Amino acid sequence: MSKHINIINEHESVVRSYVRNFPTVFTKAKKHLMWDEDGKEFIDFFSGAGALNYGHNDDHMKKQLVDYIMNDGITHSLDMASNAKAEFLEKFQDVILKPRELDYKVMFPGPTGTNSVESALKLARKVTGRTDIISFTGGFHGMTIGSLSVTGNSMKRKGAGIPLQNTVTMAYDNYVDHDTLVYLERFLEDNGSGVAIPAAMIVETVQGEGGINAARFEWLKNLEDLCRRWGILLIIDDVQAGIGRTGTFFSFEAAGIKPDIVCLSKSLSGYGLPLAVTLIKPELDIWKPGEHNGTFRGNNHAFVTATAALDYWKDESFEKEIHQKSEVIYSFLEDIVSKYPEIKGEVRGRGFMVGIASEVEGLAAKVTAKCFDLGLIMETAGPNDEVFKLFPPLNIPTEDLQKGLAIIEESIKQLVKDPVAN
Amino acid sequence: MSKHINIINEHESVVRSYVRNFPTVFTKAKKHLMWDEDGKEFIDFFSGAGALNYGHNDDHMKKQLVDYIMNDGITHSLDMASNAKAEFLEKFQDVILKPRELDYKVMFPGPTGTNSVESALKLARKVTGRTDIISFTGGFHGMTIGSLSVTGNSMKRKGAGIPLQNTVTMAYDNYVDHDTLVYLERFLEDNGSGVAIPAAMIVETVQGEGGINAARFEWLKNLEDLCRRWGILLIIDDVQAGIGRTGTFFSFEAAGIKPDIVCLSKSLSGYGLPLAVTLIKPELDIWKPGEHNGTFRGNNHAFVTATAALDYWKDESFEKEIHQKSEVIYSFLEDIVSKYPEIKGEVRGRGFMVGIASEVEGLAAKVTAKCFDLGLIMETAGPNDEVFKLFPPLNIPTEDLQKGLAIIEESIKQLVKDPVAN
Amino acid sequence: MSKHINIINEHESVVRSYVRNFPTVFTKAKKHLMWDEDGKEFIDFFSGAGALNYGHNDDHMKKQLVDYIMNDGITHSLDMASNAKAEFLEKFQDVILKPRELDYKVMFPGPTGTNSVESALKLARKVTGRTDIISFTGGFHGMTIGSLSVTGNSMKRKGAGIPLQNTVTMAYDNYVDHDTLVYLERFLEDNGSGVAIPAAMIVETVQGEGGINAARFEWLKNLEDLCRRWGILLIIDDVQAGIGRTGTFFSFEAAGIKPDIVCLSKSLSGYGLPLAVTLIKPELDIWKPGEHNGTFRGNNHAFVTATAALDYWKDESFEKEIHQKSEVIYSFLEDIVSKYPEIKGEVRGRGFMVGIASEVEGLAAKVTAKCFDLGLIMETAGPNDEVFKLFPPLNIPTEDLQKGLAIIEESIKQLVKDPVAN
Amino acid sequence: MSKHINIINEHESVVRSYVRNFPTVFTKAKKHLMWDEDGKEFIDFFSGAGALNYGHNDDHMKKQLVDYIMNDGITHSLDMASNAKAEFLEKFQDVILKPRELDYKVMFPGPTGTNSVESALKLARKVTGRTDIISFTGGFHGMTIGSLSVTGNSMKRKGAGIPLQNTVTMAYDNYVDHDTLVYLERFLEDNGSGVAIPAAMIVETVQGEGGINAARFEWLKNLEDLCRRWGILLIIDDVQAGIGRTGTFFSFEAAGIKPDIVCLSKSLSGYGLPLAVTLIKPELDIWKPGEHNGTFRGNNHAFVTATAALDYWKDESFEKEIHQKSEVIYSFLEDIVSKYPEIKGEVRGRGFMVGIASEVEGLAAKVTAKCFDLGLIMETAGPNDEVFKLFPPLNIPTEDLQKGLAIIEESIKQLVKDPVAN
Repeated sequence: MSKHINIINEHESVVRSYVRNFPTVFTKAKKHLMWDEDGKEFIDFFSGAGALNYGHNDDHMKKQLVDYIMNDGITHSLDMASNAKAEFLEKFQDVILKPRELDYKVMFPGPTGTNSVESALKLARKVTGRTDIISFTGGFHGMTIGSLSVTGNSMKRKGAGIPLQNTVTMAYDNYVDHDTLVYLERFLEDNGSGVAIPAAMIVETVQGEGGINAARFEWLKNLEDLCRRWGILLIIDDVQAGIGRTGTFFSFEAAGIKPDIVCLSKSLSGYGLPLAVTLIKPELDIWKPGEHNGTFRGNNHAFVTATAALDYWKDESFEKEIHQKSEVIYSFLEDIVSKYPEIKGEVRGRGFMVGIASEVEGLAAKVTAKCFDLGLIMETAGPNDEVFKLFPPLNIPTEDLQKGLAIIEESIKQLVKDPVAN
Repeated sequence: MSKHINIINEHESVVRSYVRNFPTVFTKAKKHLMWDEDGKEFIDFFSGAGALNYGHNDDHMKKQLVDYIMNDGITHSLDMASNAKAEFLEKFQDVILKPRELDYKVMFPGPTGTNSVESALKLARKVTGRTDIISFTGGFHGMTIGSLSVTGNSMKRKGAGIPLQNTVTMAYDNYVDHDTLVYLERFLEDNGSGVAIPAAMIVETVQGEGGINAARFEWLKNLEDLCRRWGILLIIDDVQAGIGRTGTFFSFEAAGIKPDIVCLSKSLSGYGLPLAVTLIKPELDIWKPGEHNGTFRGNNHAFVTATAALDYWKDESFEKEIHQKSEVIYSFLEDIVSKYPEIKGEVRGRGFMVGIASEVEGLAAKVTAKCFDLGLIMETAGPNDEVFKLFPPLNIPTEDLQKGLAIIEESIKQLVKDPVAN
Repeated sequence: MSKHINIINEHESVVRSYVRNFPTVFTKAKKHLMWDEDGKEFIDFFSGAGALNYGHNDDHMKKQLVDYIMNDGITHSLDMASNAKAEFLEKFQDVILKPRELDYKVMFPGPTGTNSVESALKLARKVTGRTDIISFTGGFHGMTIGSLSVTGNSMKRKGAGIPLQNTVTMAYDNYVDHDTLVYLERFLEDNGSGVAIPAAMIVETVQGEGGINAARFEWLKNLEDLCRRWGILLIIDDVQAGIGRTGTFFSFEAAGIKPDIVCLSKSLSGYGLPLAVTLIKPELDIWKPGEHNGTFRGNNHAFVTATAALDYWKDESFEKEIHQKSEVIYSFLEDIVSKYPEIKGEVRGRGFMVGIASEVEGLAAKVTAKCFDLGLIMETAGPNDEVFKLFPPLNIPTEDLQKGLAIIEESIKQLVKDPVAN
Repeated sequence: MSKHINIINEHESVVRSYVRNFPTVFTKAKKHLMWDEDGKEFIDFFSGAGALNYGHNDDHMKKQLVDYIMNDGITHSLDMASNAKAEFLEKFQDVILKPRELDYKVMFPGPTGTNSVESALKLARKVTGRTDIISFTGGFHGMTIGSLSVTGNSMKRKGAGIPLQNTVTMAYDNYVDHDTLVYLERFLEDNGSGVAIPAAMIVETVQGEGGINAARFEWLKNLEDLCRRWGILLIIDDVQAGIGRTGTFFSFEAAGIKPDIVCLSKSLSGYGLPLAVTLIKPELDIWKPGEHNGTFRGNNHAFVTATAALDYWKDESFEKEIHQKSEVIYSFLEDIVSKYPEIKGEVRGRGFMVGIASEVEGLAAKVTAKCFDLGLIMETAGPNDEVFKLFPPLNIPTEDLQKGLAIIEESIKQLVKDPVAN
């Protein structure tokens, strides 16, 4: 073991997790590649769990960031005005919101996804005067108590140490063999159901942690309609599925819906720096000044790289590129499932947010472990870690994408051949 | 109004607050100075609400950061191992923990103070199997639901939109005319008190948001003793008071206590970048891997600057410097209070975390507004904004410190002379 | 208006309700008949909402009660031992539990149904160490906060003034077009569902307040199986459906299940006196002495009448009588539904717990109002009062049962003929 | 052991408690005397924990009750109108409320104290739109979840199996060495205290279960003033201290206060039958019909005896009698404390609600056990059962009162002489 790993094992809390699956010390990264302290190169099919959709250390963003630092630009500003923030706000309007005919106020709730979710839940309760939130099976929204209350994973929930309250879980799309929204609405229309009209529903269009479950666009559209009928706010948590991961900037664009509140974080800064926003329909923006705040809600380094990152979205070429490559990935996965029936696999997901769920217990973890040995970084998902999950950077060159896919196949081949040894 | 301010007014949520008190666009900052887009210079007695204890854009940290970026070091790593993280962990042991005979595991709970507080509360509940937390009047611990539950401010609490649970508020030191811990312990020893033995107590040694209330060291020591007697964990939230703000690296050092869990953030990265740690006594570090997690728990830029910032603590010179300058500040404030009896002022605080509470309604806000006009940035604190709060960078040169203090006196002088006009 | 009604209108809280539907002053009652202060006679198809299954002022019980009082028997005993209590316990064993091969400890939790439900929920949580309870749509369990948390009715729930917690509502049998237990179990088996394994499920075999919904025996059996598979306690709230109302002493007998905990009250005392028991499988009876208590848990007048009432169950004749008469009622209701298609009626229920749900808004209330005018007392049920509910005493003579049914038909006939006038 | 005791031991839940302290089977009772199945006579200094303030089976009430039963009066009426109810309401106005210049609407919330408390808390929350209730150390209000949330006893609270919420416990009078209301108000006036303005405060004027703690009248008056200043409703739980127990019908009369809501039960029916009312200032009576209900809210047997019991209050003679005898009791207790310094006793309470708290661990329980052997029934109170509590019927003849006191002294004498043997 290296000195650095020893330091971490000795001094970092046992709560650490990814270092257990990827047991090496990383020192350098560029685009879709990472290197460890021994110089070993890895293809990155993980992308910081969706925080590095543009890959590592993108040259354009890097230049903007270093220039800003060298000029002693404001680094930390809380919610004072800075030119870096104003420029981000303006470009976000011009490049993202206006072309999509979306009208949102931008709130900086603190720099992480869970800050955004907490602010969204608070605001929905404040606006409606109601206390309950409906969330969905398989949902993941964060680790602070408010967000955890709408998160499905039982291990994470137990970590709270207290009962999690003021939420009702309903079935996500495809959770059972019939239309889950019919069931949901039955509870709302029945005065004796025990379920009150909630302040809001919070939902991911594709669930990452929950096992790469993609809701049908039709289901999402019906969900929006249902919310409108009952005066319920619709919150889309686009922290993981957003910023191009499913093929469009917002994951919900193709569903034709306009959520009341949108949570964005992870790849928003483009460079992997902490940044989050909560997008709010103007008529709902009834906060008192400072009613929700946070020390790092003005992370200007992240504003700078986020502004630069928006260049990817100036025209449609990036979307098209994502679309083409995602078809390559999807075909590959379908092939794998049919070529290797032993893995009892099912292809899941949308765009660059895909994976294979295997009914063979423990297989997904073995696949990712084998891939790591062979130089590919990839993680598992799902309540029982039954899915191995492909999250390459959106701008990975096709050649290296193919290399990564080949490593996956090689891993599966080895595992299928010699199941005992693994 | 400038174009940038207009953008912010138009597009940012009404929740924004500091921009209302400091209505200009900041573009550049160095050490204890800031400049706006019109080139106006400000002395900074605010320090990012405690996130910039070493001032802005410190040259030593800046060099390390830019070198790291230029070399394409890992930016975002979740809790994978990186050399930047290992180096931070090692230096934090060597420079901070070991010399103070403190033995803690380091948890990276996400990059903000509230992430740290949430993780601390969860762990305390998990370790003890109890649900309640005792917090204190005037306490401020963050905006996510778990942290908000232990925060005192009623406006912020109402923002939750749901009842905040599993907490009991007890009186902080000097809250009433008798020993508040006697009262507290009476509740614990009485089986009929309605207050259960809590999992933990969470406390700030000096309350910032709560109005610059400094607990006596003796009270803190007694609180620790009380926790030991009853098997209650002691959590020190050192997010604002830590990292030198009160004169020592940890604010609790002089009290001679060793908390079970410590929350650090704000100035930990040194450069204003989002970073937080939760320090845990080794025997309490019983997390399951990943039981608490977060996308930005591995912010390597912040590791790099935090490591550089620790150089300030390599010997005792920095502490001595803080001590000397804080005596200057304190004397100044005492003088002000006696020279201007009209402000009905009381000096509060410790070290570089001080202020004057005024019984004249609205006066503190007028002082900070006047100071802003005269080129000094300073904010108010307390449940009714009754305190103006001095938070200069710890390394501010004495000359500019004096300049800032002179502006404060000038502001007060003007306000006292012409109370109607203001 | 009579003097007595005026007194009530003036001095009783506006929360009073039945007096609004039955606006007269009752002075005397015998068996299935009631008389008001003007001497008007009413047939009682209401039976104190199930608290008077043996009718009013049964002569056998009355004699026992008056003898006991005249002899200065113990009236109020908390949970001290009294001969009246011991005799009840013994006869309850001999007449009820043993012949049905049921083995339960008897807890006296206070004299009302909600006391019993609260004790059952507490015990289930204590035994399992879990916090959540699964309840069902349409369920009604009482008005105190614990019981209200598992009650479906939204008006009653809002009356709490606080969010009701630690419960999850699932769909009762026939709530939607597919098997509701499949859906329920999907949540339990999925680690990511957001629904934890509960301490218990609480269910009524036939829901009274919820709209006379009868669960199929097969569904109840499946529910019991599901509880066994997952180690969840099964609580049957037999407060309204028990004591013969559905045809057997316990409503669950025909389903072939043996609940872990059973709540009984209402008709338990036989005479309309406050009495409740919680029946507990012996291995679950782990209370500490006095951990749940209540001033009126030893209501000896009720013990005396309850003991006398058990004579009804000494052989099978009473069950047979109920069965025969309930077929009369059921045929009548089916006839009504087909004879009067205008009422868009659906027959619901089981045994002597039946009614007609009408899709015509407001019709059920008109039927009961008309019946009252014609000398029949009957109430509505269901979340929108869409059901008129027949609850005659179980021992009503066939002749007067027929009279009551005739009044119902007459009322409907009038309403159907002249819908505008009503 | 008798057959009856065996039946109880075998079939009743282990939650039973008083039967453990008074291990015999009671069969008959009259006034202040009880007899067991062996014919042993006991003087009753327990009075059904305050439910039998007029003693057992009072002849006047008994006659009214038996006449009513023999005439087939309405027994159970929910909240339909009955002559028995109207007569109670009228007499309660005439004999109790009007002479005391109190104006209350009468709610029948179900027949027990906890039903009344739950209804009071609900209404206070509904009226104010606030969620929190302030209760006091040592308070006891009932075993259902709402009432338990405002109850102090930790063993009882743990019995809930869930965190008890929406309440704040403050210090009762004399809880610490300074004015507890100053402390309380400090929390209310401080926007940063973490304690919100509550819907109501609920308090007993003398705490029974809590250890016979009597609040000073001045403290109660100050509490009422404080509630008025802050727009907080004042709920007096007079379930145990009311109906003459402390010397006046309502325990709060002498304090000169007029609570917003009053909870009455226990001795209200006079005869030990379940009955409770919630008294509500007319302007607060904003319930929807049926928003709170309960099967046994119309217990007419109890209306009949309660009406008869009010004859005790037609003039001032009864109050005077209580007063005279309570002085006898108080002097006796003071003598005991000074004569037997070994018991380290302190006299507590007011009127007929008194006791001696002993610092000698376990002594109070030994005293009551010894008394039982010698033919006197008496119980302990306080969080550690440190008080033996005298609760004789208010109408006990002086001679038998003296006999009972003599038994207490004899018990103490024996215990003090021979501490080891006991």
